[in-house]
Amino acid sequence: MYVQLYDTTLRDGSQGEGVNFSLQDKLMITKKLDEMGFDYIEGGYPLSNEKDFEYFQKVQELNLKHAKVCAFGMTRRRGVDASEDVGMRALVDSKAPVCTVVGKTWDLHVTEVLRVDLEENISMIRDSVSYLVSEGREVIYDAEHFFDGYTANPEYALQTILAAQEAGANLIVCCDTNGGSLPERLVRILNEVRNKVTTDLGIHCHNDSDVAVANSLAAIDAGIVQVQGTINGIGERCGNADLISVAANLALKYDDHEVLTQGNGISHLTELSRYVYELANMNFRVNQAFVGRSAFAHKGGMHVHAVNRIAHSYEHIDPETVGNERRILVSELSGRSNIVAMTTKYKLDHDQQLMTQILERVQELENEGYQFEAAEASFDLLVKKLAGTYEPKFQRIHYRVNVETAGQTDPLTEATIKLTIDGDGPVRHEVGEGDGPVNALDTALRKALLPTYPNLKGMNLVDYKVRVINSTQGTAASVRVVIESKDENDVWSTVGVSENIIEASWLALVDAIEYKLFKDDGDVKHSV
Amino acid sequence: MYVQLYDTTLRDGSQGEGVNFSLQDKLMITKKLDEMGFDYIEGGYPLSNEKDFEYFQKVQELNLKHAKVCAFGMTRRRGVDASEDVGMRALVDSKAPVCTVVGKTWDLHVTEVLRVDLEENISMIRDSVSYLVSEGREVIYDAEHFFDGYTANPEYALQTILAAQEAGANLIVCCDTNGGSLPERLVRILNEVRNKVTTDLGIHCHNDSDVAVANSLAAIDAGIVQVQGTINGIGERCGNADLISVAANLALKYDDHEVLTQGNGISHLTELSRYVYELANMNFRVNQAFVGRSAFAHKGGMHVHAVNRIAHSYEHIDPETVGNERRILVSELSGRSNIVAMTTKYKLDHDQQLMTQILERVQELENEGYQFEAAEASFDLLVKKLAGTYEPKFQRIHYRVNVETAGQTDPLTEATIKLTIDGDGPVRHEVGEGDGPVNALDTALRKALLPTYPNLKGMNLVDYKVRVINSTQGTAASVRVVIESKDENDVWSTVGVSENIIEASWLALVDAIEYKLFKDDGDVKHSV
Repeated sequence: MYVQLYDTTLRDGSQGEGVNFSLQDKLMITKKLDEMGFDYIEGGYPLSNEKDFEYFQKVQELNLKHAKVCAFGMTRRRGVDASEDVGMRALVDSKAPVCTVVGKTWDLHVTEVLRVDLEENISMIRDSVSYLVSEGREVIYDAEHFFDGYTANPEYALQTILAAQEAGANLIVCCDTNGGSLPERLVRILNEVRNKVTTDLGIHCHNDSDVAVANSLAAIDAGIVQVQGTINGIGERCGNADLISVAANLALKYDDHEVLTQGNGISHLTELSRYVYELANMNFRVNQAFVGRSAFAHKGGMHVHAVNRIAHSYEHIDPETVGNERRILVSELSGRSNIVAMTTKYKLDHDQQLMTQILERVQELENEGYQFEAAEASFDLLVKKLAGTYEPKFQRIHYRVNVETAGQTDPLTEATIKLTIDGDGPVRHEVGEGDGPVNALDTALRKALLPTYPNLKGMNLVDYKVRVINSTQGTAASVRVVIESKDENDVWSTVGVSENIIEASWLALVDAIEYKLFKDDGDVKHSV
Repeated sequence: MYVQLYDTTLRDGSQGEGVNFSLQDKLMITKKLDEMGFDYIEGGYPLSNEKDFEYFQKVQELNLKHAKVCAFGMTRRRGVDASEDVGMRALVDSKAPVCTVVGKTWDLHVTEVLRVDLEENISMIRDSVSYLVSEGREVIYDAEHFFDGYTANPEYALQTILAAQEAGANLIVCCDTNGGSLPERLVRILNEVRNKVTTDLGIHCHNDSDVAVANSLAAIDAGIVQVQGTINGIGERCGNADLISVAANLALKYDDHEVLTQGNGISHLTELSRYVYELANMNFRVNQAFVGRSAFAHKGGMHVHAVNRIAHSYEHIDPETVGNERRILVSELSGRSNIVAMTTKYKLDHDQQLMTQILERVQELENEGYQFEAAEASFDLLVKKLAGTYEPKFQRIHYRVNVETAGQTDPLTEATIKLTIDGDGPVRHEVGEGDGPVNALDTALRKALLPTYPNLKGMNLVDYKVRVINSTQGTAASVRVVIESKDENDVWSTVGVSENIIEASWLALVDAIEYKLFKDDGDVKHSV
């Protein structure tokens, strides 16, 4: 049986503390989820803010292959016609083909939070769903606090979802909104409900009891057809059900279930996980199930011994099925199929010695804090360097960055650069100023390089992310900077690591500029 | 029914990457676990290293109230008498009252890894358990890879544990060693096995499929009497079952089960979790179920609205039952109820005018890029400023930060500070150096402040996050810096926003230091 995966990373997931996606981030994640084969992508809550509304306009230009975009909202307000409710209008105006409406199931919430009577809430549900159906939308009804509501007053809870059913909802999702259910209660309730409802059912779990994945899987056994969750389980409080774990378990451990058949499938789960973390500017979780860097890292004498002899004996799945890899911690040199994959575009994979060199160098750099997953342009430059096809576009002699305050105003920042360009004139010595140190350095660098490389004019830096590594050392830790750049045709990312944030920024900046120059020369094959 | 909790943080948990407990750490954690009421504490693997062996000597001096200390080891080697096997001897010499012996269950491992025949393995199990029983120890037999072994060859798997039973084992633990089982298979197998074995059974799960807690709880329903796991689920690969979640779920959601009755019980779980993280030098997981800082942190307009009115409606348990607390996050969906909630601890909510001022100021700052959810200490200072109870701890006159490269080595960074402290002497003018600009600034600032505020010595910066806002402007965008600081008692976060990353860091740094100073004066109410 096919199990639909409904992703709400961009809506419920974004409610996690410290999670902040830019509009561009949301569009890129949407594209990635579609490539993977996710069935529904809940992109935002159009009524709640401008940025979400813009998302729904821009996403129409993405030409998604399979995924259906969903706009999230609440049932109409009391005493207002659905067609005149501002929330309902925002949903319709978003033009999203699917509208997901959340309504109250728990009688306590109806009377104490919404402050309407029980009947009115039923009307609110019915009217909202009907209205959206009449506007030609596919409608998903989220029954908030379903399990608590059903436990408190089963008849009323049933009434709420039957109202959604009668009004034409395509799917009814039972939400364990406060994350307090354990699998047994969840399944018991779903079994009771399933006999009384003809509409397909979905499940939406939160991880407050540390069992959201198990709850989601148990719900499938109880007949639901859709699992809602987020990538990496990010979200408010303890997060949502981790769709990575749900997908991997379903694909690999259930003979009679399928997921993600319309896209790349589970072999790209590790890449997807890291991509979302990078865009959310969050650290990876090394111990994360299936996709963590340590998920297949073997330590402890007896395990390592066995792994070398019978790989599968100590692993519950083959790491490559989810795009991950085995790591032996005693010796850091294990096979790196993802590195091989990344280099095949250069047709170097026949050169075993070079492949080994690349692998070793990547391992070394990763130990220093480099990560190339979201910085492929730096990786491409690394390959060129090791393959001997790299010639530096300029040589730095010296830089200086100075930031100083003047009274109570913002500080003044000035950067100087001294560099040479082979075969092109004397030493360039330029100064630049800017709003901050990296901006000033970038300005000075461009001044120095533009006369020789006028094509740099078409290049812009569009994003700049900083992540502290070994953060328990406070401000003396290493810093990883990732810069995203673009020109008229492409977007590319580069990385730099140093204990000094300026130096780390410099390294990423240099890679960004050199990549642009090599690209324009036709010396690197750019891929998305 | 009482459920025994068996903690292996100090043995299995310590196999996690990056986890390293000193002997002293292990003894302190043992004491803490005993105070909490844990039943068994697996302190180490005496054969494997000197430090573990020493632990078993020192632990005898601890006078534990309830917990029984266990020494871990393997079945005797082939062709050797148990009484002469070096591993067996190490177990006996440790003098631990309980010995936990792991043996092979999976025929594949017996023949391919141990390289003995199936019968010999049975003897190895029987002899090892008998020997330890004859030495007067309580013996726990860990059946390694039990579920995979049983699936591959149920008769043989049963034989292995029956051998342990006949030899007098007090408990037989079914281990899901590679973490690949899902609850349904686990329960099915336990149900079959339970009828054939008279010895009590235990369960030992790993989190490779992201369901270790659910597996452990399901096993209890299938009749096991002991759950093995670690605090915070630390351990190899994806970790062990998190005993914090297991204990909290058992105590709060099962009417017919009890845990930790011989100690402080679950009300100290949050403290225990953080204690173990501190000693392991690991970061807390803010999203951790039950005990994470964000476990009861509410964001999102509608949720906050509801929480203030009916606290329990949005929380699956009362946070205080596990020693945690509720937090209301200030967010871009914030309305009055969020601000009111955050300020109630200052008893200002009666002052309507002040509340309005605070709300307006927060919105202004949020438009500039500030976010206070992960920077409550800055919010507290903001409230003081608007309430008129703030006096600056020092006045900045000037700072300068200089970063310059010297040849090919890492850049040199130097910062100077000029400041005054009201009523305390002349202008302070200090210089500091560091690995990077913020580190250098911090160094100079402390030099200037320590003579007047020696308590700053106990304060450390532990995390530093940078986020670019309006990132489509590349390196000229605004930057938000969040700094996390701690002292002996507390952890707090502060924020700064500017187009200049140095200035943004300065602002967050100043807030962090002033918060510490106000806190020590008793002028801010710190919460977790």
